[in-house]
Amino acid sequence: MSGLSQATGVSVATLKYYLREGLLHPGRATSRTQADYDDSHVERVRLVRALSDVGGLDLTTVGRVLDAISGDDVERLGVLGAAQRSLLGADLVDIAPADAACAHPGGPLSAVALPGPATSRAHAWLARRGWLVDPRDPVIGDLDRAWTACDDVGLGLDEARMDGYADAVEAVAVIDVDSVPPEPHAALRQVVLGTVLVDPVLAALRRLAQQHTAVTRAAGENHTAPE
Amino acid sequence: MSGLSQATGVSVATLKYYLREGLLHPGRATSRTQADYDDSHVERVRLVRALSDVGGLDLTTVGRVLDAISGDDVERLGVLGAAQRSLLGADLVDIAPADAACAHPGGPLSAVALPGPATSRAHAWLARRGWLVDPRDPVIGDLDRAWTACDDVGLGLDEARMDGYADAVEAVAVIDVDSVPPEPHAALRQVVLGTVLVDPVLAALRRLAQQHTAVTRAAGENHTAPE
Repeated sequence: MSGLSQATGVSVATLKYYLREGLLHPGRATSRTQADYDDSHVERVRLVRALSDVGGLDLTTVGRVLDAISGDDVERLGVLGAAQRSLLGADLVDIAPADAACAHPGGPLSAVALPGPATSRAHAWLARRGWLVDPRDPVIGDLDRAWTACDDVGLGLDEARMDGYADAVEAVAVIDVDSVPPEPHAALRQVVLGTVLVDPVLAALRRLAQQHTAVTRAAGENHTAPE
Repeated sequence: MSGLSQATGVSVATLKYYLREGLLHPGRATSRTQADYDDSHVERVRLVRALSDVGGLDLTTVGRVLDAISGDDVERLGVLGAAQRSLLGADLVDIAPADAACAHPGGPLSAVALPGPATSRAHAWLARRGWLVDPRDPVIGDLDRAWTACDDVGLGLDEARMDGYADAVEAVAVIDVDSVPPEPHAALRQVVLGTVLVDPVLAALRRLAQQHTAVTRAAGENHTAPE
């Protein structure tokens, strides 16, 4: 275990905690107090650290995500819904995966305008935009809350600006989906980890792109003649 | 104070805590135990809730952000740097705002290739891309850590995919910067709140756009003849 600690930079005490919480599978016992750990343990510890340190997940959610990744009942076409559900937890328990539109590409696809639960501004906006998502998806509630918070502080996030963001984010999603491999387990892993770990990449890129844009524009203002 | 509690949906105990911590300015005292609260208090409480509940900031960071928003030494062109610094805290204390390239649009702009502190893969990628950012900006470290975490779990986030994300995020940043008003205080407020509160909007949009993209593509696979 001290070897595993050295290989991963994670303390023995923390590794023991991961073992107790089931976040790390036991090593192969070689005596009553010794066990062998292999590359699969190193990989798993790195995964737990990435999800908690960079992804910002608490260890309960990390455990749920790891369970989802190692689950056996994954169909490729339902992978995105399953992956997103694994991150959302209890809120979504009452939505059977088989019911989710996103798990049924050949089934009753529908824009969120079709009958569904209580609608919101986010529902209405999504329907107008024509995005094919499950109208019961809790992520729509997340969007609505985040949008309302922007309104509450007067950020001026109107539908035109939301559409602009959505156009940009569609390009992100195409890259995300293109990077999903065909094999179901690998796909689920890619989607779950990509959702959690690429968000911080995008957030950092946004701050840097803001600086670049502001600087470039200011330089342009300084160097071109006023109209 | 019970009126303020009703207007904001925040408990009296929490409001008292905000007062003690300086997150909320005192009301106008009308007696030893009574004070009047006005719209400015309602607005401030909503702001604290938005930053903490939706933005996910701890209350210490909320206080720092609020201090930044109400600061008096803001130049418009340094707003983005100042705003981002207010979110980052102590790490950035050793970078005087006046030194930051992003605060000096007429000054020594430089891509990150120019001499700076220890470079990383993120530095090299930014230099190749030609983004004009301060090479000492801690956000570059955030990007590097997030990128490394993706590598550690085998997400396959190579430079081509990073460039794809960056193209999309540039479009987001243009919308962000276009929404910044000219008046310095309003600008700083817009940038700080936009950074914190629009990230959750973008994260929700990304999940929904992934579903839409996956569903649309799967439907296309089902309905078109194989090549």
